[in-house]
Amino acid sequence: MIKNDLFLRALKGESVDRPPVWMMRQAGRYLPEFMELRKKYDFFTRCQTPELASEITVQPIRRYGMDAAILFSDILVIPQAMDIEVQMKPNFGPYLPNPIRTKDDLEKVIVPNIQDTLGYVMDTITLTKEKLNDDIPLIGFAGSPWTILCYCVEGQGSKSFDKARGFCFTQPELAHQLLQKITDTTIAYLKAKVKAGVNAVQVFDSWGGMLSPTDYQEFSWPYIQQIVDALKDESPVIVFGKGCWFALKEMAISGASAVGVDWTCSAKNARYLSGGNITLQGNFDPARLLSPPEKIKTMVHQMIREFGKDKYVVNLGHGILPNIPLENAKAFVDAVKEYQE
Amino acid sequence: MIKNDLFLRALKGESVDRPPVWMMRQAGRYLPEFMELRKKYDFFTRCQTPELASEITVQPIRRYGMDAAILFSDILVIPQAMDIEVQMKPNFGPYLPNPIRTKDDLEKVIVPNIQDTLGYVMDTITLTKEKLNDDIPLIGFAGSPWTILCYCVEGQGSKSFDKARGFCFTQPELAHQLLQKITDTTIAYLKAKVKAGVNAVQVFDSWGGMLSPTDYQEFSWPYIQQIVDALKDESPVIVFGKGCWFALKEMAISGASAVGVDWTCSAKNARYLSGGNITLQGNFDPARLLSPPEKIKTMVHQMIREFGKDKYVVNLGHGILPNIPLENAKAFVDAVKEYQE
Repeated sequence: MIKNDLFLRALKGESVDRPPVWMMRQAGRYLPEFMELRKKYDFFTRCQTPELASEITVQPIRRYGMDAAILFSDILVIPQAMDIEVQMKPNFGPYLPNPIRTKDDLEKVIVPNIQDTLGYVMDTITLTKEKLNDDIPLIGFAGSPWTILCYCVEGQGSKSFDKARGFCFTQPELAHQLLQKITDTTIAYLKAKVKAGVNAVQVFDSWGGMLSPTDYQEFSWPYIQQIVDALKDESPVIVFGKGCWFALKEMAISGASAVGVDWTCSAKNARYLSGGNITLQGNFDPARLLSPPEKIKTMVHQMIREFGKDKYVVNLGHGILPNIPLENAKAFVDAVKEYQE
Repeated sequence: MIKNDLFLRALKGESVDRPPVWMMRQAGRYLPEFMELRKKYDFFTRCQTPELASEITVQPIRRYGMDAAILFSDILVIPQAMDIEVQMKPNFGPYLPNPIRTKDDLEKVIVPNIQDTLGYVMDTITLTKEKLNDDIPLIGFAGSPWTILCYCVEGQGSKSFDKARGFCFTQPELAHQLLQKITDTTIAYLKAKVKAGVNAVQVFDSWGGMLSPTDYQEFSWPYIQQIVDALKDESPVIVFGKGCWFALKEMAISGASAVGVDWTCSAKNARYLSGGNITLQGNFDPARLLSPPEKIKTMVHQMIREFGKDKYVVNLGHGILPNIPLENAKAFVDAVKEYQE
């Protein structure tokens, strides 16, 4: 049904001629066509208008021909749907004016009806599928419950999310209640996305690496596992935890189809820590896309040799940076397409 | 000569009744007596006035009786001495108005005479040694060359130091020249500190964990190794790299007396990755000091059991946070002192 199914075959663990490639945040600020729309429409207008979000989703595909598209959206649409106000401030990032810190705050947080609050995402999926014309698969995503909690409690981005960690360590019962509400919402949201047509889903645990392995097992992993359990029979699930090398084993045996790794974990360590059998995704240092194109190609080929071409999805180790030259992003994608054993 | 030499014995790998304890940033904003001085004197006045810096160094010792003191200073006194302007902006952190980005910028950077530029640190050591009265050892420190480069190039703190990484990946020759200048300055600085009386030195690679293992071996580790090589016959050296679990093996065989670990690396993994023979230091999650005191004590005892009491220095996995209650910091130190096999 999907003409280029390299990505889906890699998620199944099938042998392929070359690994598939896409880039986290591939629809983003390094693209001039994205910047054109960004000048005209603010962040949530872009997210919430299916014509805009679907157009942004396919922009990088038109330019570079990746093997998968990822829906343009944001992990913070979930707290927004849960009645937590989320603003996107220029030159500042996300800002939540009423962070969750007390029992009273928590009681106001709802588990919403997905169609009523996030129906626009499903409309975006319909429109995007039309534009993609079954050429390549479409990925849907959500933040991990822990990562969403970080923003809900901290109220903004942070280097170390000390307020969020402090909330969990001083009021663990409240933390678990909030995590469960986020998990319930996320499961319903991802199921609706799959029903609307995405071919795989990815859970981003961007801030899991802030936790000790013990605390990760308490505050992050069990909720991701709930999501995997609920989704895996309906869609392939990819779990990506930035800085979560210590949890690769749990991730590998969770029922997820693939596990993402960041660039601080070598291919060898990632294969070892994940047990050697699961499909891995990653892990080019996003800042290494600033290297000259020829150097990028050499490094990408080296990376594929280290991970092996099978059970592997080429990606960055985190989102692409805004200041990456267009020819460098092209070198990254082309290097994978040109790869030969 | 030092009355309580638990810390120095642990660095030598000798068997002890209980491990020694100190806390990174133990002279800091969680202490009311520190805040009193902070109200009256700005950051660099506190660093550069030996009476103030030595007083701040001993404040936590008077209150809690740690097994080692660490000189109150900042890693950014090094670029400052190298003729790179460093400001400490309230509610912002370090700000370097003229960051190093080009060959011209680099040529203006000097390798200074230590006595002329950092003599105040040596005077602080003399004064602090008098106040400590040989009760406990005094630790001197410096940032790793890579970590110092991060600030010099980025011009301020950052979540991911993309400008600094971009500088290294687009202009590697300039990066290596800057790293070598920082290394030469740091070696002379630490040697002067040892001569002035510190009993051990620690190198903080706060941002080494931003690099891939391959890039770490190019841009960070060789310069730390130079420092260890130059210092190890004169003083015990502790190497601490935040997020650098992947480099624990190199650190362990470097000639350093001990290796610091952050809280994302379990005791078991840290012992395994470091080869099982080197003294380790760490790794309580600083945010876990927000837990109730009884919980802190339980967790500290568990941590000591996991690391083992020998070849171990109890510490946090990074600096203590400003908002830690006094009784919680006390619970941490007391838990170690009360520890029995």
